[in-house]
Amino acid sequence: MAAQPPAAAKAPRTERGRKTLRKLLDAAAGEFGDHGFHEASISSITRRAGVALGSFYTYFDSKDAIFRALVQDMSEAVKVAAREAIVPDMQPLEIERAALQAFLEFAGEHKEVYRIIDEAEFVDPQSYRDHYETVAARIRERLETGGAKGELRHGLGEIEAWALMGMNVFLGLRYAIWREEGDPDSEGVARAANAMLAKGVAR
Amino acid sequence: MAAQPPAAAKAPRTERGRKTLRKLLDAAAGEFGDHGFHEASISSITRRAGVALGSFYTYFDSKDAIFRALVQDMSEAVKVAAREAIVPDMQPLEIERAALQAFLEFAGEHKEVYRIIDEAEFVDPQSYRDHYETVAARIRERLETGGAKGELRHGLGEIEAWALMGMNVFLGLRYAIWREEGDPDSEGVARAANAMLAKGVAR
Repeated sequence: MAAQPPAAAKAPRTERGRKTLRKLLDAAAGEFGDHGFHEASISSITRRAGVALGSFYTYFDSKDAIFRALVQDMSEAVKVAAREAIVPDMQPLEIERAALQAFLEFAGEHKEVYRIIDEAEFVDPQSYRDHYETVAARIRERLETGGAKGELRHGLGEIEAWALMGMNVFLGLRYAIWREEGDPDSEGVARAANAMLAKGVAR
Repeated sequence: MAAQPPAAAKAPRTERGRKTLRKLLDAAAGEFGDHGFHEASISSITRRAGVALGSFYTYFDSKDAIFRALVQDMSEAVKVAAREAIVPDMQPLEIERAALQAFLEFAGEHKEVYRIIDEAEFVDPQSYRDHYETVAARIRERLETGGAKGELRHGLGEIEAWALMGMNVFLGLRYAIWREEGDPDSEGVARAANAMLAKGVAR
């Protein structure tokens, strides 16, 4: 997923090592996503990855360690997906629309991301909290930049950032993870949510 | 918590039975909140409740059953807390502000509500989904009523309801569960969020 190896993994020193680490993290996403932390096993992860068991221990000390690395990896991947959707010259509101649409598409393609990040609340609470605090800080910065540029209201801060993050997370839950026949597509959901974000619900 | 016994419990036939069921659910909230589903035990729940082990089985067949009943009970309690904050003649936006403030206060007093509902994603996925679908349906109805009354925009629906629910859930996570020294109080958070809901973030 993300391009940078997560800090919780031991850093690979070769390109081959980097690829092995990537295979292990992708396999871990599948394994934890399918079975949850408690039922998942290191041997299933290495089998899925097509990697020798010994290679696992080159990068991780334990199942807890790869889970922690995976949460960091997914958190980074969510960030990259949003960032890649943002192009220079986009205005602040357009940035939020594009970031949400990219997130909805990312979550639709990587449905395990919800289960894994949500399970971190129980398996690795610090990573869970770090993830949301990092995302909220990023949103807050964008809102403040938008205020400085004049497109957004002044004085937007942490409350509005957490509110906006919550909107996006729950729209992903409903329209990516629990998607139903006939639902609006990512673009339609992002457009409606952006209208609400821009002008609110008052008449 | 909630006044009505949850559907997942066997219904008590006497007032004394109703009290025993209430004690069991409150004890279960403490036990699951402190230790999580897997570490919690029926005997610890009955010990906390000060109730004989046999009484447990009058109402529940298993740990899974009382967990499911507890999620329903908390879902109902969240609803009741919001509803009690709403008084006749409140306008639609004022209703949303009061409901959020009541929810923040409820979550601050019952911090276990997040852990238990979040753990339902893994222990009892149907209850987890039912909880959010029910809350979203209630919010949607309020938004549509607000549209009909003319205070809110027409055409608000499921997308806006899930977005608003997500705002509230994440504001509760940040300002009730992860509350920090110096944070604005429930009233301040609800007021800022309501301004964002009413008029959006555009200048």
